[in-house]
Amino acid sequence: MTAHMTPDEFRRYGREVIDWIADYYENVESLPVLSQVAPGDIRAALPSDPPEHGEPFEAVLRDLDDVLLPGITHWQHPSFFGFFPANASGPAILGDLLASGLGVQGMLWATSPSATELETHVLDWFATLLDLPSTFRSSGSGGGVIQHSASDAALVALIAALHRVSGGRTEREGVGSGRYAVYTSEQTHSSVEKACRVAGLGADALRKIPVDPATLAVQPTLLREAIETDVRRGVTPALVVASIGATGTGAIDPVGELADIAHQHGAWLHVDAAWAGVAAVAPEFRWINDGVGRADSYCTNPHKWLLTNFDCDAFWVADRAALVGALSILPEYLRNAATESGAVIDYRDWHVPLGRRFRALKLWAVIRWYGAEGLREHVRGHVALAQEFASWVAADDRFELLAPHPLALVTFRLRAGDEATRALMERVNSSGELYLTHTVVDGKVALRMAIGGTLTESRHVQAAWQLLSSP
Amino acid sequence: MTAHMTPDEFRRYGREVIDWIADYYENVESLPVLSQVAPGDIRAALPSDPPEHGEPFEAVLRDLDDVLLPGITHWQHPSFFGFFPANASGPAILGDLLASGLGVQGMLWATSPSATELETHVLDWFATLLDLPSTFRSSGSGGGVIQHSASDAALVALIAALHRVSGGRTEREGVGSGRYAVYTSEQTHSSVEKACRVAGLGADALRKIPVDPATLAVQPTLLREAIETDVRRGVTPALVVASIGATGTGAIDPVGELADIAHQHGAWLHVDAAWAGVAAVAPEFRWINDGVGRADSYCTNPHKWLLTNFDCDAFWVADRAALVGALSILPEYLRNAATESGAVIDYRDWHVPLGRRFRALKLWAVIRWYGAEGLREHVRGHVALAQEFASWVAADDRFELLAPHPLALVTFRLRAGDEATRALMERVNSSGELYLTHTVVDGKVALRMAIGGTLTESRHVQAAWQLLSSP
Repeated sequence: MTAHMTPDEFRRYGREVIDWIADYYENVESLPVLSQVAPGDIRAALPSDPPEHGEPFEAVLRDLDDVLLPGITHWQHPSFFGFFPANASGPAILGDLLASGLGVQGMLWATSPSATELETHVLDWFATLLDLPSTFRSSGSGGGVIQHSASDAALVALIAALHRVSGGRTEREGVGSGRYAVYTSEQTHSSVEKACRVAGLGADALRKIPVDPATLAVQPTLLREAIETDVRRGVTPALVVASIGATGTGAIDPVGELADIAHQHGAWLHVDAAWAGVAAVAPEFRWINDGVGRADSYCTNPHKWLLTNFDCDAFWVADRAALVGALSILPEYLRNAATESGAVIDYRDWHVPLGRRFRALKLWAVIRWYGAEGLREHVRGHVALAQEFASWVAADDRFELLAPHPLALVTFRLRAGDEATRALMERVNSSGELYLTHTVVDGKVALRMAIGGTLTESRHVQAAWQLLSSP
Repeated sequence: MTAHMTPDEFRRYGREVIDWIADYYENVESLPVLSQVAPGDIRAALPSDPPEHGEPFEAVLRDLDDVLLPGITHWQHPSFFGFFPANASGPAILGDLLASGLGVQGMLWATSPSATELETHVLDWFATLLDLPSTFRSSGSGGGVIQHSASDAALVALIAALHRVSGGRTEREGVGSGRYAVYTSEQTHSSVEKACRVAGLGADALRKIPVDPATLAVQPTLLREAIETDVRRGVTPALVVASIGATGTGAIDPVGELADIAHQHGAWLHVDAAWAGVAAVAPEFRWINDGVGRADSYCTNPHKWLLTNFDCDAFWVADRAALVGALSILPEYLRNAATESGAVIDYRDWHVPLGRRFRALKLWAVIRWYGAEGLREHVRGHVALAQEFASWVAADDRFELLAPHPLALVTFRLRAGDEATRALMERVNSSGELYLTHTVVDGKVALRMAIGGTLTESRHVQAAWQLLSSP
């Protein structure tokens, strides 16, 4: 007999792991944020061969502490200000644990109806929380689905756009060469270029539209020109990706205007609001979503700034038929009465993989634990901290702000130049006290202070400014 | 202040969830395997709006029991014989829980070195456990990575194949139209067709090669003819996908022969061993991997039949440079010293998404808990049960076996025909006592008895045969 972990052992080790995690959160602030190991250090401490005989679970926990922990960069540290945050929270961790425990696979409605129906329902709830337009609700022609990441969402939006713009030809005949073009801000995330490469268009199909130097948002007239140039050359505009909260600087594109231009030429408008979109839980930030009612798809990531562990990208489409048309294949071994009745959603047709976890459980647990009220407070608190931080930067002659900062990302630099700014970043990051990352704005190296950790409080932001501003 | 779950609350609710899961496994056998709800039943029982105020975690657990559980098809039930299994196990659940708790994001080596190094290391371990060829080890030009699913692996293999066969042109110029072709068994999983559609080749680029009626494996001479026909027409063979354990019937293609044919024409040979590959933990089943040393990539899913919760697809390439060349994009905000040194792996370049969980923790926990010995026993036990089941089918004149069954999938039918076979499936599935699914072999409806649940024992297989064979 295989020596499975018995339910009693699971209770015992489960408690140890729960306690390990609780201890971790109680102590994480005392750890260096950025791991200081060198390449190969971790592997050198691991046995070269797998064990022949099973080991007690204590051995795993011991090596976690002794071997792995020094090689962890602590994304849950309250002084982690790099990239964008990757929020974890108690209810999300436990929701995900329940999904692991149930171990169901929701590729079809029939393979666990609750997994599908809860996901549809929670994404309707979430659309309500963000006050997203009715076009994205499942009661009409749209609906939501959880993708792993915004990169997956961009890819899927592109596939659906190609399906629609080609009248269903691309999934049979392919995308051809130089036939279709994709447009996005020069500030947009690399995911759009990756999607063009993966979807077979190639990077040459991507038009990076210059931004307004003041707002760092796409200039609609330049988008229009690029599209018209393509149309004259016989290239079909397939997809425009607008950003709400671009990765480098947090720039917010004029979505409504871009949608109108896209639609005049038959293209799909996808909104990547991966980081910033969740801010719309608070009414005072809903202006960021102006124009989203004219978008064809929209994504935002609770796993970034809304207390839900990675991975959880909420993705909505206004026309689910385009998505399903692009991705549906029904081999015999997946046929079943519910699918053939047409009365159910089979989420395998809404993304690239076939199999899927019970993805909605953790988002459901988060929304219920915090309520709309708690989610608003979470976002508001970080925006207020970022505004305070920006005011300190603005008041210090040695520094300058480099981009608008209406939410919780502040982009700034030393006036002394690129080298001094990089040196500052290296100094603070190697201290272990905090971690922040950089970008380039208008040719200048800039630091990005992304405030949004689950545990980040005022004192952490104050300490960060102390460290950054002391010579 | 946002009302986060405190570490003490996390300890308390965490224990409740751990106990909920332990209770679930103690009781799962008493639940109907297949959910009996109708479309919309679950949503009708959920509140139409999200809560304004936070709720206690008990409310989540109560609704899990009262609302969601009736809509669950119990993949962890010992009498779940549908599709392929989706193994969960205690160490995997706890390993994944640790990943959730740490909440790190391993897109780059630098963003948590342990997440990257443990993954590389564990996939080397796993290659050792399966006795995979040295071409796939990270010490040479290859290496492993965890993908979400075999569908993602097939897509990534196709992107890498196109990169190599085009000399790096496709990711810039796109895949064109009718330029490249992909070959696979007519028995292969729909993931290959989906990959062709997603990657912009279109379904027309896929050549479904007929199988030998006895073995249900691809006929090498027919693959050769298809490739030669394409080459004569100026179409470039890009990818051949061989199956070890095809989804419908478990057929095993002659990988080595197919690889030789693929390579004669410059194509990439990917092996999809999603379900069956893990059987190679036991030396007596390693013959299934004959010829894999000539493959360019290989995947198998511990989340199917090796005790590791979904999702966990182990994917190896012999030439990691092709993969990274196809998928790497380095925007300013991801630049860092470790990446630029060339001394580290950045797994974001090995798949479609950018972000990633600490994916290796659960596979590491499984390998350590069970040891090589425990993993062998797990697979051996199921194969023995399947052989016993097949002997009962063979001995009953009313039934016939439809495909070879060297591992743990038995494909069979009633000699009375398609309608009787379908009626039998509906009868047993609606009983709630077990769940199995069907396929079509050579035009005939066939039932698939996939034995491989973590908790499946001899008595469950005996009871299944009782139910299937009683009028």
